[in-house]
Parts: sequence; structure tokens; C-alpha cells
Amino acid sequence: MNKGKLYAIGTGPGASDLITVRAARLLDKLDVLYAPAGRKGGDSLALSIVREYIGKQVLIKERHFPMTNDAQEKQQAWDDVAFEIEADVNHGKQVGFITLGDSMLFSTWVFLLERLESKIDIDIIPGITSFSCIASQAHFPLCMEQQSLAVMSCTAEIEVLRRALIDHEAVVLMKVYGRFDKVRQLLIEQGLLEHAVLMANASMENEIFYPDLSQVEEGEALPYFSTIVVNRSWKHH
Amino acid sequence: MNKGKLYAIGTGPGASDLITVRAARLLDKLDVLYAPAGRKGGDSLALSIVREYIGKQVLIKERHFPMTNDAQEKQQAWDDVAFEIEADVNHGKQVGFITLGDSMLFSTWVFLLERLESKIDIDIIPGITSFSCIASQAHFPLCMEQQSLAVMSCTAEIEVLRRALIDHEAVVLMKVYGRFDKVRQLLIEQGLLEHAVLMANASMENEIFYPDLSQVEEGEALPYFSTIVVNRSWKHH
Repeated sequence: MNKGKLYAIGTGPGASDLITVRAARLLDKLDVLYAPAGRKGGDSLALSIVREYIGKQVLIKERHFPMTNDAQEKQQAWDDVAFEIEADVNHGKQVGFITLGDSMLFSTWVFLLERLESKIDIDIIPGITSFSCIASQAHFPLCMEQQSLAVMSCTAEIEVLRRALIDHEAVVLMKVYGRFDKVRQLLIEQGLLEHAVLMANASMENEIFYPDLSQVEEGEALPYFSTIVVNRSWKHH
Repeated sequence: MNKGKLYAIGTGPGASDLITVRAARLLDKLDVLYAPAGRKGGDSLALSIVREYIGKQVLIKERHFPMTNDAQEKQQAWDDVAFEIEADVNHGKQVGFITLGDSMLFSTWVFLLERLESKIDIDIIPGITSFSCIASQAHFPLCMEQQSLAVMSCTAEIEVLRRALIDHEAVVLMKVYGRFDKVRQLLIEQGLLEHAVLMANASMENEIFYPDLSQVEEGEALPYFSTIVVNRSWKHH
């Protein structure tokens, strides 16, 4: 019997052609592909990104991971999928698991890695991060030479975000959804409003780009994947 | 005449199959490809990464960018290449410029962007960052959920690096070359030695991996592309 293996595959930010050549070749050859489904019955965004590369023989297994605060329910969902993947690999299958963006940055894939690392053979394929894509799409650089970059979640305390904006030349502010007004106020306070851009769904059909954050209406509902990029040495146009 | 355009293309960390599908397809169709040459007469690493994707018709122009402290000499070199690229694009050519890693993070490509942004049509294609690749190769995650990541250059003051290690769950320490002993001392002081890994030339044939930094000899000459990844919530094996 062939030796089974698990491949964790970063899909990148959203456009199908922003996955790596390695990922595209793998998706063609797998036996089984696990895809996280956002909601029960909902389509998997990760799956839609990579669909054109998936070989005809690949058995697709969409699995639901609950977005709940019930830790036990979450643990159980990850345990179940880990168990299933382990069985497939032990049956000699080449198994894929797709994850949005990069595999090792803000990816719940790591919950599977923790469970499976000591049990089965694993290869991890990195993906383009959303902020690299935003910087490219917006023609807005991250940092250069001796400068530094911080990647923050806007769910952090404002004081924590303030410190990052003071300490680093470039700051990526993720999950701005629902906290935009407070974060924009902070950027104004720090004199950084003209050094910031906002993008949502970068590289996808529904991409939204605000080169100037003052154009966002107060209380405007921004998409879930909205991110602000700040660079002290660069101004938006 | 066709409308010319400049494509900045991130080559990713080093393995040929870690470039994006978009980059691979573009390289096949270009008229001209500019590649930075490390030294006069030296091979271009970026070029060796993408060579298998370059179409037969592509005219390759290797250009040397001096690694000097003479600002004027540097400016002149970038001015010259910008002028050459602008002329090619104005002649209706599809022109590529390749850059290691991601196009917008620590990339000297931005010196060309500054010069050409207002003059010609530009598309930027992101690339896999070295630290995403290291995290994947080492099975060592960056950060999760509410955590934050700082990407630092080890040429910064030790006090600046210390603050980043205190403030962020995960820290990438780039350009560790030549400062390894001091940085390791700092990690010991912060109780982070078992939460750190070092990798050089990630994904390339000459990849070097130290899962345990205490195994690096004092004064050992590390490769130029050596990077340390630290994660407070993860231990090396």
C-alpha cells in the first residue's frame, strides 16, 4: 500500500490564480480533499477558490466547524475531523486540507496540526497572505529595509493598537469589521489617516477599496474580510 | 500598437513551485523581463527561481543594483532602470520585473514603484513571504485568533527587538546574520529559547533548519537569508 500523507494547502486571498503552482499540482493528484464549510449547508469559499485545479478522482469532504463560543463543541468538531483525516491517511490516501490565506497565520488549520503532528506524515504549503495581496492591489507598500511591520487584530484593546501604530512603520489592522469608527478615530489621533488604506475581499470579484478612509460613512457596514494597511512613510493617493 | 504594461512579480521564498499560478502564466507571455543581479556578473537568484516558466520569446535584461552606502550611486542605478522600463512600456511591451519573496514587503521593487507609479500602467503580483514558508516548512505556526505578529529586522536596536518580543505573541526576526549571538542572548533573557526556530534558505536545496537554537555554535557563520521565528504559545520539538 502507498504511504498516506496529509497536505495542508493555503489557498491565498481569494483569486484562483493566486494559489501556488505547488498547490495547483497537488490538488490535481489528491485522493481526498477536506474543505471547511462556513455554515451548515453553506458553500466553502476555500473550495470555490481552488475548484478549477481539483482532479476528477478527488473525493471532496466538506466539513462544518462551528463558529461558537462553546469551547467543547469546537474541540469536538476538530477532534472528529482529525480522527477522520488520520483514518484516511492510514489507509494510504493522499489527503488535502484547504485553508484561506496562509496556512500558518491566523488559520484554524493549526488546530488540526496540533492533533495530528505526532500521528501522521504532514506537508504544509504556504499561501499568499491577505495583507500582501492588499498591498499589491492598492500599490501601497508594507515596509522597507530597517523598518518593521505589525499584524494586529482590531479585536485587541485600542491601547494595544495605539502602541503598535507608534512602534512600527507599517501596521496591518485585520478584522476591522464592527470596530471601524473607533479605529479610524485612533488613526486620526495619531495623524495617520492619510497614511492608511482599507480593502475588503482583495483580489475577488467583490473587492472593495477605500484609498481614503475619510470616505467611509460613519456606521457603514463593512464586509467581514475588511483590512486596513498603515504605512507611516507612504501616503494614499 | 498594444498598450504596454509593467508587472512586478514576487518570486516567493525560493522553490520554483512556490510562485503563484498568476506569476507562472505571466512569465510565459511577457516580451521583456527585468531581473536584479546580486553582483556584477553574478547569477540572479530571482531569475533561477522562475526560469522554467519564462516563454521563449522573452528578452531577459539582468540589471545590477549596487549594494553600496553611496546613496547617489544607488539612486542613479534605480533611475536608469526606471528610465529603461518606462521606454519599453511606452513601446507597447509587456514588461516584467521579478523580486524575491513578496513584492511589497522589504522589496527594493518599491524604489521602482515610486519612480514609475505616475507614468505607466502597473500590476503588482504578490509572493509568498519567507516567514510564511519557514512556518510551513518547520511546522511552527505564526499567530492565531486575537494574537499579533511583528516582523522585525535584527539590524534594529536590541531594546526595540526586546519590546517586540514582549508585546507580540509571534515575532519574525529577519537578517539575523552577524547578530545571532546577541539575539539568542535576548531570547534566553526573555525565556523564549524553546519557543524559537531558525531557518535559512527556506524551501531551497540548501535549506538549513535549526529546530533548537541552542545547537547553533557561538560565532557560527549563518547564511545571509537566516530568519528566526518566535511563538510564545508554541514550542519547538
